[in-house]
Amino acid sequence: MITSHRNPLVKRIRALERKKQRQEEGAFYVEGIRVVLSALEREAPVELLVYAPGLLTSEVARSAIRQFEARGGETAAVSDDVFRAFSQRDNPTGLGAIVAARLHPLESLPVTPDAIFVAASDVGDPGNVGTILRTMDGMGAAGLVLVGQTTDPFHPTAVKASMGTLFNIPVAAVERMDALWEWAEQHDLFTIATSGRAPRDYRDPGYLFPALLLLGSEAEGLPADVIERADRAVSIPMVGTASSLNLAVAAGLLLYELRRQQP
Amino acid sequence: MITSHRNPLVKRIRALERKKQRQEEGAFYVEGIRVVLSALEREAPVELLVYAPGLLTSEVARSAIRQFEARGGETAAVSDDVFRAFSQRDNPTGLGAIVAARLHPLESLPVTPDAIFVAASDVGDPGNVGTILRTMDGMGAAGLVLVGQTTDPFHPTAVKASMGTLFNIPVAAVERMDALWEWAEQHDLFTIATSGRAPRDYRDPGYLFPALLLLGSEAEGLPADVIERADRAVSIPMVGTASSLNLAVAAGLLLYELRRQQP
Repeated sequence: MITSHRNPLVKRIRALERKKQRQEEGAFYVEGIRVVLSALEREAPVELLVYAPGLLTSEVARSAIRQFEARGGETAAVSDDVFRAFSQRDNPTGLGAIVAARLHPLESLPVTPDAIFVAASDVGDPGNVGTILRTMDGMGAAGLVLVGQTTDPFHPTAVKASMGTLFNIPVAAVERMDALWEWAEQHDLFTIATSGRAPRDYRDPGYLFPALLLLGSEAEGLPADVIERADRAVSIPMVGTASSLNLAVAAGLLLYELRRQQP
Repeated sequence: MITSHRNPLVKRIRALERKKQRQEEGAFYVEGIRVVLSALEREAPVELLVYAPGLLTSEVARSAIRQFEARGGETAAVSDDVFRAFSQRDNPTGLGAIVAARLHPLESLPVTPDAIFVAASDVGDPGNVGTILRTMDGMGAAGLVLVGQTTDPFHPTAVKASMGTLFNIPVAAVERMDALWEWAEQHDLFTIATSGRAPRDYRDPGYLFPALLLLGSEAEGLPADVIERADRAVSIPMVGTASSLNLAVAAGLLLYELRRQQP
């Protein structure tokens, strides 16, 4: 049992809070029974399970650790005190995992005739990315593409907001919109841009599938040329003083409308 | 110009990050040009404007400060360094305000024939409360009622997430559901409970108005007796592995559906 706060594993978990470290290691840390069990169930590339025997009362979780060990998986027991020190929660439940941070190649995303994809371009808030993944899981979207400077989905806040759904939805990343357009054209995706200024209501009928919903940055929205090039630009009607909805809320409205119109 | 980090005002702004201090003072601190201008426009009870002349380049904001002073309002100039010290932003824009934290009496909420209200019972995440306010402003809801242990809407995270709409939507608070039911019955509100287990789809027609949407805690949802007592219990169809959507996303879907059915 690890009891020292200066143990290399403890330092490693702390270091994984930083994007640079996550990129260098190609791994991230997740905490919580639900998310770790979700990672194991979905056969995510779990490198190591970390647990605090004194905190972990869940029999399901304890059994999952034993099964992981039986399959040759690496585990590490730490003292409650050490677990609390790297926990991001007020009341840690005593289970965490280091998971390989794998993005999928864009070409591997499953384009079926009724598929719905999301592309997030320069989305800065990891909470939004995680919440969008959670909604995508809820309504059955097929994959997420991160474009440009979009936040890394392995950020602790994104992982937490995704409630474990990060392991259910394939995520790809491209540096520039060009690559996204090429993929969209190749698969004949119906591209939908969101814009506060588009005259067309997002609830208008006529979406075609497979569809690709394009989301822009929280502050700036999508660039004008992307809105121009999309098959359809839509807006969400608003009556108040705020100029836009929260990005994850707007994505939720659009995704459920797409689902409603799905063949 | 305040240049000392030990100035009482600086200490006060820092102290207002804590709920206890906000309750004792009956005031909260907001930061950012958009939100402060929104507070002034909506004639929120602004007690003091704080600004850093070196950071504040917006002419609109500078003009608002002069007008506030001309009406006898109190202002305080602080050095850029001091402003950065209490700012919660990476790139502060140099404007903040201390505003009286006023909740509205439940009886004062404007019940019109087509009004839509939201009640949030034991909602713990201030980001959710702020995001729900932003959506309510967007679709034109009439007021928010906080029930039980719901987070204080003057928490810095709630204020930030609301994007200034906190000043547009009247917020009331009641300690127990009893008071809410009494108010709902008195005004013949159509009450809608959200529940993952309700068989009825949230998009079914037939909502009546004025309406009251009941939202429960992130972890537990609404208590069974509340779901039982509501005029209608609805759920959002889900296909994935997560057991629920993010609360603010779910609220967004329900509020826009209510708006769609509004007479």
